Amino acid sequence: MAVGLTEPELLLPVKGVRLSAIASGIKKNGNNDLVLIEVAENSYSAAVFTQNKFCAAPVILAKKHLQVASPRYLLINSGNANAGTGSQGMQDALQSCQRVAEQTGCKVEEVLPFSTGVIGENLPVEKIASALPVLHQNLSQDQWENAGRAIMTTDTLLKGVSRQFELQGKTVTVTGLSKGGGMIQPNMATMLAYIATDAAVSNEILQQCIKSVVRLSFNSITVDSDTSTNDACVLIGTGRAENNLITQADSDDYKLLLNVVMDVFIYLAQAIIRDAEGATKFVSLQVSAAASESDARQVAYTVAHSPLVKTALFASDPNWGRILAAVGRAGVDFDLDKIRIYLGDVCIVSSGGRDADYTEDQGQQVMQQSEISIRIELNTGEHSCCIWTSDLSYDYVKINSEYRS
Amino acid sequence: MAVGLTEPELLLPVKGVRLSAIASGIKKNGNNDLVLIEVAENSYSAAVFTQNKFCAAPVILAKKHLQVASPRYLLINSGNANAGTGSQGMQDALQSCQRVAEQTGCKVEEVLPFSTGVIGENLPVEKIASALPVLHQNLSQDQWENAGRAIMTTDTLLKGVSRQFELQGKTVTVTGLSKGGGMIQPNMATMLAYIATDAAVSNEILQQCIKSVVRLSFNSITVDSDTSTNDACVLIGTGRAENNLITQADSDDYKLLLNVVMDVFIYLAQAIIRDAEGATKFVSLQVSAAASESDARQVAYTVAHSPLVKTALFASDPNWGRILAAVGRAGVDFDLDKIRIYLGDVCIVSSGGRDADYTEDQGQQVMQQSEISIRIELNTGEHSCCIWTSDLSYDYVKINSEYRS
Repeated sequence: MAVGLTEPELLLPVKGVRLSAIASGIKKNGNNDLVLIEVAENSYSAAVFTQNKFCAAPVILAKKHLQVASPRYLLINSGNANAGTGSQGMQDALQSCQRVAEQTGCKVEEVLPFSTGVIGENLPVEKIASALPVLHQNLSQDQWENAGRAIMTTDTLLKGVSRQFELQGKTVTVTGLSKGGGMIQPNMATMLAYIATDAAVSNEILQQCIKSVVRLSFNSITVDSDTSTNDACVLIGTGRAENNLITQADSDDYKLLLNVVMDVFIYLAQAIIRDAEGATKFVSLQVSAAASESDARQVAYTVAHSPLVKTALFASDPNWGRILAAVGRAGVDFDLDKIRIYLGDVCIVSSGGRDADYTEDQGQQVMQQSEISIRIELNTGEHSCCIWTSDLSYDYVKINSEYRS
Repeated sequence: MAVGLTEPELLLPVKGVRLSAIASGIKKNGNNDLVLIEVAENSYSAAVFTQNKFCAAPVILAKKHLQVASPRYLLINSGNANAGTGSQGMQDALQSCQRVAEQTGCKVEEVLPFSTGVIGENLPVEKIASALPVLHQNLSQDQWENAGRAIMTTDTLLKGVSRQFELQGKTVTVTGLSKGGGMIQPNMATMLAYIATDAAVSNEILQQCIKSVVRLSFNSITVDSDTSTNDACVLIGTGRAENNLITQADSDDYKLLLNVVMDVFIYLAQAIIRDAEGATKFVSLQVSAAASESDARQVAYTVAHSPLVKTALFASDPNWGRILAAVGRAGVDFDLDKIRIYLGDVCIVSSGGRDADYTEDQGQQVMQQSEISIRIELNTGEHSCCIWTSDLSYDYVKINSEYRS
């Protein structure tokens, strides 16, 4: 029951990127579970990964490979996270890359592995190896949708988006995929996201671009405060749109590209929240006039993680006292008399208590909507943030208490 | 459905303390909702309160009164928190104390007000005032049980305990009450707890005693990470047991008393977790061999607050990958290869992954129990902590999405 999210009608091909998906037998339900993405020669890729100390074997290996080579192939499996698998997990991740290298003729360092699914089970490398020849043979530019579906786990909808714009008279395409519904408080990136553009961008600019946009997209969402062991987000630039290479961060061309890439990243990050496990509400939390950005984020995440706020949202109950209590325990300094809290456009808290003009009816009207904004003005400074979160429903408990059974 | 908790068979009177409970009409269901506790002259009281910035009006007033006088009366209502009520809330709390002073002949500063219940509604002072004459008239030493029941909100069981021991040949009694089931991550104290002893203890020693025991009891539990606006915990020493006044923290008499008080506090704190909203599991989280106590607590609380760990506990699913992922995102430094995690006596994680001897059957056997211990050895130092928490069930969501409707 995703909130305000439908599947994309069309995902546009990106010149220089071919994809393929197959059912290798890792997922018990027989759905597609293995994806190969081929990136044309001389492309650049930038990536960010989870900061969980227990990061998965494929995350460790992908980081290592990125340091020594430009990726030509991305191998992604769903249904098994290859996390918490110790040295065996590292061997399995490496062997998967070796098989791709043998199949395609590239170097092993040019392959990046990614896994998502249950933690703590060994990766069935032989199933992957058996599927590789057909997977390789079927590579095609128009397989974005199939790839997006094959990386889904508890997702109920395909998450993808395409944008096109003109750059120096050339048409540039940006297409991206994301997946994830639980264990979502990305800390560098989300579960998995792959975004490619055919714009010609230098490696340095691509790195700067992913850093800028991840902070305001995948690093501004939370379902349940649980940072995954497998988060990874890759931005690929193939340069096949034939624009002049973008090398300056202050150029108009870069700003144009950055705007579109930001738009794609925010769409994909919000899609994860709209399709969060059990979600019935999509909530924007805006904290403004804070003394620092870290204060703003601290308050926003404290409210977003409060089980009592989340269950009140699920119940469409304007129980604003729970928002106030969460703000009060966030560990951030402010003057009780100056803080203002809004539910939609309705002021609920001012002068240290319920706003004089507030009525329960007004709050009820906002809470009954499926998309809700909560705004908190700290009035201690000039910093702000906006994060997105979901509610806590019976279905979140159901999904996460039945996930392995 | 409390876990391993039954109601106390008998709560022993404490010389110098009289109590009374009545239905004043604040609770809509007609249950008792107002309690008066009388403390004999020349008693000492020590108290700790919530650190939530939005602390309730009665908390602000009780702190103020404690600074200038020794309390003679504690007035406690359930069904209304008098929090988020601004200046009207302060007036209502003060007026309630004034009515008690008029009724009993004490000074207004000798009355401490406490409230628990829904946030953001004005306190019906007239209902309280009307109930005071009968409440005062019915004061009696043997009303601990009725008082304990009258402060319950979402609690399903009365939480109380008594202990007796010999001190200098005199029998000393310690009796306490607590309440609370949600909005529980006390940060100084829990929702409400009242503990009295007739031991003769100096004011300084009583202060030191409450500080020592709260840290390891009420400040070591969490249901949902939500720190209440109304947390308060009071320890009363009436001195009526006629032992020689305890004035030295290093005396054997104090150590004897401290042990018993600690026992009572831990019992009452654990009772809150055993009867936590929707709880089906009682979980001890022990973190040992940490570089600092703050590291240990950071790891313990990150695991205890993880919705994914909590739903796995509810499902009796030994999904230890979720524990590992929570430890990994706690923001604490450790060596992946040295950390060990145990479910009960079963080692689940060692050498950076699943322990070589671990089998799913072993994990399943532990998880099926209603009382579960999770031990995490960081092996970075010599500090440790133990906290207690509950699972996340359908009923937690049900209780908190229906609380006000």
